[in-house]
Amino acid sequence: MIRCVQLYQRKCGVRILSKRFCSSDINYVSRVRQMDYWQQSDHALESEFDRGHFMLMVDKEPLIVKPPTLKNTALYTPELAVCSYEDLKTKLQDYGLEIGILNSVLLDVLDPTEHYNDYRPLFGCAVRTMEPPAESGISLKNLRQELGASLGGKFLNLRMAMLTLRSERHRNLLARFQALYRWHMIYRRCPTCTLPLKAHASKMSATCVRCTRVFYPTISPVAICLVTDPSNEYCLLVRHRGSVGSVFTCVAGFAMAGESLQETARREIAEEVGIVAYDVRALNMSQPWPMPNSSLMTAFRAVANMEDKIDVAPDELEKAEWFPREHVRKALDRVLGDPNLRGVKFDKSDPETRQVLRYIPPAGAVAHHIIKQWVEER
Amino acid sequence: MIRCVQLYQRKCGVRILSKRFCSSDINYVSRVRQMDYWQQSDHALESEFDRGHFMLMVDKEPLIVKPPTLKNTALYTPELAVCSYEDLKTKLQDYGLEIGILNSVLLDVLDPTEHYNDYRPLFGCAVRTMEPPAESGISLKNLRQELGASLGGKFLNLRMAMLTLRSERHRNLLARFQALYRWHMIYRRCPTCTLPLKAHASKMSATCVRCTRVFYPTISPVAICLVTDPSNEYCLLVRHRGSVGSVFTCVAGFAMAGESLQETARREIAEEVGIVAYDVRALNMSQPWPMPNSSLMTAFRAVANMEDKIDVAPDELEKAEWFPREHVRKALDRVLGDPNLRGVKFDKSDPETRQVLRYIPPAGAVAHHIIKQWVEER
Repeated sequence: MIRCVQLYQRKCGVRILSKRFCSSDINYVSRVRQMDYWQQSDHALESEFDRGHFMLMVDKEPLIVKPPTLKNTALYTPELAVCSYEDLKTKLQDYGLEIGILNSVLLDVLDPTEHYNDYRPLFGCAVRTMEPPAESGISLKNLRQELGASLGGKFLNLRMAMLTLRSERHRNLLARFQALYRWHMIYRRCPTCTLPLKAHASKMSATCVRCTRVFYPTISPVAICLVTDPSNEYCLLVRHRGSVGSVFTCVAGFAMAGESLQETARREIAEEVGIVAYDVRALNMSQPWPMPNSSLMTAFRAVANMEDKIDVAPDELEKAEWFPREHVRKALDRVLGDPNLRGVKFDKSDPETRQVLRYIPPAGAVAHHIIKQWVEER
Repeated sequence: MIRCVQLYQRKCGVRILSKRFCSSDINYVSRVRQMDYWQQSDHALESEFDRGHFMLMVDKEPLIVKPPTLKNTALYTPELAVCSYEDLKTKLQDYGLEIGILNSVLLDVLDPTEHYNDYRPLFGCAVRTMEPPAESGISLKNLRQELGASLGGKFLNLRMAMLTLRSERHRNLLARFQALYRWHMIYRRCPTCTLPLKAHASKMSATCVRCTRVFYPTISPVAICLVTDPSNEYCLLVRHRGSVGSVFTCVAGFAMAGESLQETARREIAEEVGIVAYDVRALNMSQPWPMPNSSLMTAFRAVANMEDKIDVAPDELEKAEWFPREHVRKALDRVLGDPNLRGVKFDKSDPETRQVLRYIPPAGAVAHHIIKQWVEER
């Protein structure tokens, strides 16, 4: 337990924040330590549950809202909806769904507001529905639509939400939400002795009831790397098997135990594209990403020779190609003007068009920023 | 399976390397793809087992050797021993110990040599002993000493090996060795359905025999950060609870799901030292580290104000203090001249001396290089 929190408790009871900690910087330390405390103390967190704020995911789709001011609908980017406990409880009940500490994870600590002067937890509540019986005439999609509308928003596919959410903070909260919930659903039993794992209320760790080993949500480190030629006028972009048509991105892959991230980048380039990169260097960007599991993407640049023969690993990639900066700039401009990828052809019927660079990933993906930074160097 | 490997097999049988792939760069791609192939094909890897080379760990202590040329014994830094299958099998048998695919993990792919013209696997073989009965008059330590000597080396504590191994390649191989072996010992059962996990021969993944979910060795990303003052003349170093006396290092901590590594660095500084850092930026360094679990350390720098009150989290740290560059330079010089920390006081009886900066970590730790880079900036 953190002393700072103990100090609050001694001085003012659990829920009252001392006045002398109210500058924004001091709030940061207090929030961080409050988060640490709530991660560990189930009793403290449970007693705050019905005073918390909530994000909602139904069938792995987060509830999003339109931002209040919306001028250009083509540039529409969503935000995650935040609901009060009472509101969410009532609306879920209308559909036979429940909110409780068991299906909620701790996402963050919210600052005091004009309405209350203590910290409040931000939770993510995850609900799974079942397909209603055919004779009911209700479809799952309609059920979600109605529930979403009753809460003032709608549900959006997790990947599209990550790619298009307006704020980095919301993207990261969504990544945490999915990571903690998924991990909690999979890690039910101790992988050594098979007895139950008892999760903390926060879902940020779980302990075996017998061998007392503690498990933490797994995070898979990923190196994502933009490869340029020595003149720095061309870059190598790839299309992953099964990704939507005409979107090209950087090479990326999971770190293996016992290698640096720089080695990961170099190895993945060799594995996926068959060329040897050099001068691997870290950029100052990293990003949590919830698919397929909980990943942590760290950004790199590297150099390779365009004369080296590209030899793609066909189980991973459909295509790898060197592009001149002006060509990449056009793809960047296209995605900036169409962040929801409405112009992308999603069908797989036209293999030719799929292999033409027209888009890079939208601003929700770190690849977007790696490529944008390179385009804007000249 | 990787096409390049298939090509070898079609052209020359599994074990013969085509001449046209013999430049060092082309070897890199081939080695990487051979590694990928052996990770996945148990049959192929098992058929190479008795032709492999081996590193050895007994009771979590790696077998190390003195490097051949040794002039200054104070600067003695070890290397990991590499043994042939036959040699290791014979020597282990003398002590009732066994070598097999079940207690071995795949570490790397070795290039052809003058003696053979194909790739060979490098394995790590891990053995656990049991304390001999008291009446035998043999101690576990003597047993390990004798076994080590019979193989031309000795066993060294894992942490000291990581801190002092001469080459980064050997340190990373040792980190991989411990990470894969430890993970394999813990992940025996599916944490969802409790049925057995079937590990690949490489120990680089395991699949549930019922629900077919695939699990990979867990890696915990860590941000390690040197905090300097705005003038860049002072840096903040900490002493962890329970670490050896008079060694100071950077702030570090595990990434939480749903945060960037830059956020991890900032959060850990607030959690551990109670101050708010800004201008967090990535350095081009990362390092796998096997303790307590398999970690992946990524290096950062940040800035904070020396006027801000330090408030250490007493469950993690004994001390945090700002030091001027010249003071840190002396600690750097001391560890460069005494890389095995022989001058460190290991006893806890003298709390005063323990809290005085005399050493930074040796060159095996990424913290050493982060601090060294800063010292050498002026």
